[in-house]
Amino acid sequence: MSDIYPIKWNADTKILTLLDQTLLPHEEVYNEYADPEEVAEAIRSLVVRGAPAIGCAAAFGVVLASMRYTGTETGELKALVNSAMETLGATRPTAVNLFRALDRMGSFLDTLTEVPCDRIQSDLEKEALAILDEDLAACRRIGDFGSELVPANSKILTHCNAGALATAGYGTALGVIRSAFRDNKVSMVWVDETRPVLQGARLTAWEMARENIPATLITDNAAGAIMAAGEVDFVVVGADRIASNGDVANKIGTYNVAVLAERHNIPFVVAAPLTTVDPSLPTGESIPIEERSPDEVAGYGDLSWAPEKIHIYNPAFDVTPAELITAIVTEKGIVLTPFGPGLASLLVTE
Amino acid sequence: MSDIYPIKWNADTKILTLLDQTLLPHEEVYNEYADPEEVAEAIRSLVVRGAPAIGCAAAFGVVLASMRYTGTETGELKALVNSAMETLGATRPTAVNLFRALDRMGSFLDTLTEVPCDRIQSDLEKEALAILDEDLAACRRIGDFGSELVPANSKILTHCNAGALATAGYGTALGVIRSAFRDNKVSMVWVDETRPVLQGARLTAWEMARENIPATLITDNAAGAIMAAGEVDFVVVGADRIASNGDVANKIGTYNVAVLAERHNIPFVVAAPLTTVDPSLPTGESIPIEERSPDEVAGYGDLSWAPEKIHIYNPAFDVTPAELITAIVTEKGIVLTPFGPGLASLLVTE
Repeated sequence: MSDIYPIKWNADTKILTLLDQTLLPHEEVYNEYADPEEVAEAIRSLVVRGAPAIGCAAAFGVVLASMRYTGTETGELKALVNSAMETLGATRPTAVNLFRALDRMGSFLDTLTEVPCDRIQSDLEKEALAILDEDLAACRRIGDFGSELVPANSKILTHCNAGALATAGYGTALGVIRSAFRDNKVSMVWVDETRPVLQGARLTAWEMARENIPATLITDNAAGAIMAAGEVDFVVVGADRIASNGDVANKIGTYNVAVLAERHNIPFVVAAPLTTVDPSLPTGESIPIEERSPDEVAGYGDLSWAPEKIHIYNPAFDVTPAELITAIVTEKGIVLTPFGPGLASLLVTE
Repeated sequence: MSDIYPIKWNADTKILTLLDQTLLPHEEVYNEYADPEEVAEAIRSLVVRGAPAIGCAAAFGVVLASMRYTGTETGELKALVNSAMETLGATRPTAVNLFRALDRMGSFLDTLTEVPCDRIQSDLEKEALAILDEDLAACRRIGDFGSELVPANSKILTHCNAGALATAGYGTALGVIRSAFRDNKVSMVWVDETRPVLQGARLTAWEMARENIPATLITDNAAGAIMAAGEVDFVVVGADRIASNGDVANKIGTYNVAVLAERHNIPFVVAAPLTTVDPSLPTGESIPIEERSPDEVAGYGDLSWAPEKIHIYNPAFDVTPAELITAIVTEKGIVLTPFGPGLASLLVTE
């Protein structure tokens, strides 16, 4: 199991605590939040990141917005909450879990009619806690389903961090690795460093080291060479948004890994909760791709290594077409190609 | 044209000057060398890097070794030079140009029998200058031949730095880009940052900015996404060693780019002088691949972002099989598949 929980809610103090992922692995700092705008900024600045974790954090941002209201007018309270939801929804465009969590909180709020304000506040709190609990439970089920796909004695490559840090806990892709490791199937985890923000080098490496899962950090550039050397048996990654047909938006470079895996006949598996599926999009082509600051590419932190005059393009995600994906592992089971009908049936029964 | 010359020899002072490429792009510092051991260290620490440039620098290291001898015993002089050649040859294992240059200097030394020491010194100096001049001339021819392959209005992607900085001047892959830009065929150069040492972000970006060639820096991870978006028409890279069959060892991540280019039907062209071809190796499988310090992956410079406990694997090169290569551009012309006979015929007439 994993004891890493990036998002904690204190039911007594009504304070949200986020593990500051920008400071990992060298510092383990927990920030406290009582202000929804500050939660939005934490999402924007990657203090909390990873599609499911963003959704959970945003849900508590909504709770915090409601808690700030000290009056008794339901309409005023709802207006305040709706305004905070707009702010939270404008932070990052690609991960659909954010919008799913906000929609769920908003729809739930809509059902709370003729209810006093303090009851609305406590009901929203319960709903956010349910989102957090469900995500953690979903990750554990994803991990266990996914482990069934992992061959014995596997060397597994992963890209970015779809770990406990990216979820309520346990992780999606790293949930599969955790369960497979528990099942004695993992001989090595290859960790792509994942430029530019280095979620692999900083976060996945930290999670693996902390739990003594055998892992080796590589540059993203080395993934092809180790596949060509026969050193990768299985690839598992997370997802930020999955279109109806199974096309997957995930961290930039995921597509490169999928193309390399196909060349080497290595299973390429996506692990994600059903909240990551966006049934409104027929294919990955219409998934909005966040473009982030050139500073992330020009250097790292305060260090800049690129010449000042150079133009930079920094898309944070890419789209892997369904044809390159072997399986999508959800909390309700494993979906195989063609993904469309399989995903649709799981969503209907959700 | 390019006015970037990373290696300069002062015939009056007998001092070698190397542009310190570890400090680029922020500082343009030229180091002076009179000691062959220091030249070896400059090669090892990447002050000078790039297969052809390493060969040229090593040739002058041999000259410097001979210059240190102030006696009149030919045997003593030759022993000193041979010892320096061993040191220079033990610096970096993958680029064959190093060994070709040292072999050439050694074979030439062997021909200098019954010749006074000062004449040996001046003859070795002339031979090293010839190697430098020939490399520059080869790069210009490679550039002009390669430009013929570039379609009009091309967006060209390159990986690492096979530029003026990696050669005596003008560059191999960047030589092709320079000639194609001169021929008005280049609308954009996509520069892979090339982790871990960031030769793309630091050196290729610097060369492009300095000559106002339109360029955009990306992470290595973004190469697949821009190809999928139809934004790459042509890929050109250098080489550190080419086997008889056309398999190419080049900077780690080159193989990833080649696999992506094949998926998108984008020409993948290798530009290299014939000194990069190693006819003793039947295929790329037997090319020795340098493994460099884990520190290069754990961070950059003094900055470390990986957890201390994580294991790291850092191969500096990978091998791209001939089947993924569209053309190999040499100073004697363009070689198409099957590369074996084409390369062999050019080497015979070398």
